[in-house]
Amino acid sequence: MRAVDLIRKKRDGEALTAEEIEFLIKGATHGSIPDYQMAAWLMAVVLKGMTRAELATLTEQMLYSGRVLDFTDLPRKRSDPLEAIPGFVDKHSTGGVGDKTSLVIAPIVAAGGLMVPMISGRGLGHTGGTLDKLESIPGFNVNLSLEEFRLVLSECGCSLIGQTAEIAPADKKLYALRDVTATVESPYLICASIMSKKLAEGIDALVLDVKTGDGAFMKQEKDAVYLAELMVETGKRMGKRVVALITDMSQPLGRKIENSLEVEECIEILNGGGPEDCRELCLELSAWMFQLGSRTSSVGEGKRLAEELITSGRARDTFREIVRLQGGDVAVIDDPSRLPHAKHTLDIVNSRAGFISKIRCEQVGVASMLLGGGREKKEDSIDPAVGIVLHRKVGDAVEIGTPLCTVHYNAHHRLEEVTELLEESFMVGPKAPAPSVLVRQVIGA
Amino acid sequence: MRAVDLIRKKRDGEALTAEEIEFLIKGATHGSIPDYQMAAWLMAVVLKGMTRAELATLTEQMLYSGRVLDFTDLPRKRSDPLEAIPGFVDKHSTGGVGDKTSLVIAPIVAAGGLMVPMISGRGLGHTGGTLDKLESIPGFNVNLSLEEFRLVLSECGCSLIGQTAEIAPADKKLYALRDVTATVESPYLICASIMSKKLAEGIDALVLDVKTGDGAFMKQEKDAVYLAELMVETGKRMGKRVVALITDMSQPLGRKIENSLEVEECIEILNGGGPEDCRELCLELSAWMFQLGSRTSSVGEGKRLAEELITSGRARDTFREIVRLQGGDVAVIDDPSRLPHAKHTLDIVNSRAGFISKIRCEQVGVASMLLGGGREKKEDSIDPAVGIVLHRKVGDAVEIGTPLCTVHYNAHHRLEEVTELLEESFMVGPKAPAPSVLVRQVIGA
Repeated sequence: MRAVDLIRKKRDGEALTAEEIEFLIKGATHGSIPDYQMAAWLMAVVLKGMTRAELATLTEQMLYSGRVLDFTDLPRKRSDPLEAIPGFVDKHSTGGVGDKTSLVIAPIVAAGGLMVPMISGRGLGHTGGTLDKLESIPGFNVNLSLEEFRLVLSECGCSLIGQTAEIAPADKKLYALRDVTATVESPYLICASIMSKKLAEGIDALVLDVKTGDGAFMKQEKDAVYLAELMVETGKRMGKRVVALITDMSQPLGRKIENSLEVEECIEILNGGGPEDCRELCLELSAWMFQLGSRTSSVGEGKRLAEELITSGRARDTFREIVRLQGGDVAVIDDPSRLPHAKHTLDIVNSRAGFISKIRCEQVGVASMLLGGGREKKEDSIDPAVGIVLHRKVGDAVEIGTPLCTVHYNAHHRLEEVTELLEESFMVGPKAPAPSVLVRQVIGA
Repeated sequence: MRAVDLIRKKRDGEALTAEEIEFLIKGATHGSIPDYQMAAWLMAVVLKGMTRAELATLTEQMLYSGRVLDFTDLPRKRSDPLEAIPGFVDKHSTGGVGDKTSLVIAPIVAAGGLMVPMISGRGLGHTGGTLDKLESIPGFNVNLSLEEFRLVLSECGCSLIGQTAEIAPADKKLYALRDVTATVESPYLICASIMSKKLAEGIDALVLDVKTGDGAFMKQEKDAVYLAELMVETGKRMGKRVVALITDMSQPLGRKIENSLEVEECIEILNGGGPEDCRELCLELSAWMFQLGSRTSSVGEGKRLAEELITSGRARDTFREIVRLQGGDVAVIDDPSRLPHAKHTLDIVNSRAGFISKIRCEQVGVASMLLGGGREKKEDSIDPAVGIVLHRKVGDAVEIGTPLCTVHYNAHHRLEEVTELLEESFMVGPKAPAPSVLVRQVIGA
């Protein structure tokens, strides 16, 4: 078998056999097929697509390129009155602006008796990443070994870490290549990348939060639905329970954007407060996890359980446990002022009376990235203190002079650009638009 | 400027600016843009195409990535009674089976008073290469320096060498990458590759022989015409006189295939004999070169001149001069038995009476490659002695037992495969098909 013939086959729109995909992925992982051949094949996949059978093999090959975790023999140190044998569940979001739900959901679902072995990513471009947010808690260590991950999981029911070298190395390799060859945007490659990592976690069930709208990677709802269907189908084929929620990312989720500000907002939610939209989405996603993980018999029951776990403070206590077990400063939970804070703030004020008709979500994400809250390139470092706090969201009434948002910043050098981007991001109209639906569709239920 | 953004642009079907293409080609040539990024861009070009403006810039950037020869000050040592200031002309063929015309045309046109600075290629896959054919003449050196090339040219009016490191290094780099990433088959990339090398020769005029049919790279005539139009347009935009002849490659050209056998056939033609089709094509192409090089005022006059130069023996004498000046054994011209000959021969005989309706040309090329006459991979070496001699061509009557062709071979290990391929290659029908037209179209006249 020669790589060049397989590239040609895909270039000409033909489907590769399972053996051929195995040859490519094994070759890429072990270095026997050079990057330039993989790059040509990836571009052919982006432009010619894949069959469902090809996608299944690709995902499987990427999954089995590394270790697949198995927690069935996990010693259960915590005493959970609710359930004897907990299910292993996880949630994955395709990424957005202000999307901080993992930090709330993981403790809720673990407090509710399920196990959440969550392997997360970092932010890139206009989107944030769970690991970066967690690292704004002083001392929090996301780089646990798989042994430590296992330990934290058995202690408190969940753990949040980054991808290790053992998990889906083929994805690690291909993702780095896709990033520099403009071959990220293929639903097939995105599906295989996400699902190979998630299925390696040893979970029984997975809830996917597929974002759509201006701040998401899939701007069009139909593209989000297509990706969701691919992922649900791929997961189910591997014997997992999977649903995907298509959710709104036409404006930032919640009010706080970037790292320590987002941790602050998560603590507000775990304390029973926080902004309505973000709180609601955390409850919805937790509810689906409870239902898929057989913890509750319906999603409605799951939602009531999630609310209860917040009200009782048990979700917050579990979050405290996670922070403690992963080396973070637990005092942050009761006193969020211990989180890094920016030296300066600047208000962006409104210049025309009316109602917010639209917030250019991607642009807000870019603005917060430029502040240093995100990464333009993978190798960029992050300032955990900076970010943006929204005071008005879509549908809110505004007067001339109403503060729209506050910029939290440390460095001045890109402030002008950020200010300009934010001023352009808020659109004001004469009347409030129809409220947007947070969960637009559920795929695979 | 970032390569990844330019790859994305082409992936999305947009046209790159001249500055963007310059950035890519300079980066590829100097190694600042890695192969994997160029491979992704090449695949996007294959699948999304290029505008004429992009193609013009690409060709120009590849041309000026290296030295562009200039022979205007060439000292003229030979005394030519026909012309004082000769034009510089060349011919390029897109490649086929038994396509040996360069070895006949170069001496005809040089003998007729024009200068032919010919930089040629090697065979790959089922097609032969001029350099490999020349090297079957004992001692013949195709690896002249540009200084030596210049010297031979001034002595006898033509010289035939291989691509040097100074000529279009961008093409050398990209071609190697295209070969292993299934990105050879793009009319834009083929055009830029051919034209950048040919325009670097310092010529005023170029005749293109674009093959079509089963033994050509462009199987469909419309694809050959499209490529021809691109090349003619590109050449004219650079201020050159260019025409393209779309010629038949539905069966091998002439009767002898591969290296020393083809040199033998060229000598037959230069002696006034040889097979009709190959002789005719040599005269046609020479005639166009005479006309474009302003040596004759019409193609018809050019053809009469070419015939005359064969009849008078002057073309053969010029070939002798080329062989002598490039270090080859000149005695070969008068005694072709001095060329390497294979140890064994084997006849393929016909099994059904009728007329040859078709010869599977590519398959015959593959058979001669498998004998060792061609290269499967670039690094393969060639046996100059082996090859195939056809005894019957399309339209010829055959009886049961008529020898169709003779295999000249040295090694036995792939003989069975070769025999099978050849037996399958000759199709016999109840009546002779309409004779195929050798020159199907002329583009750019």
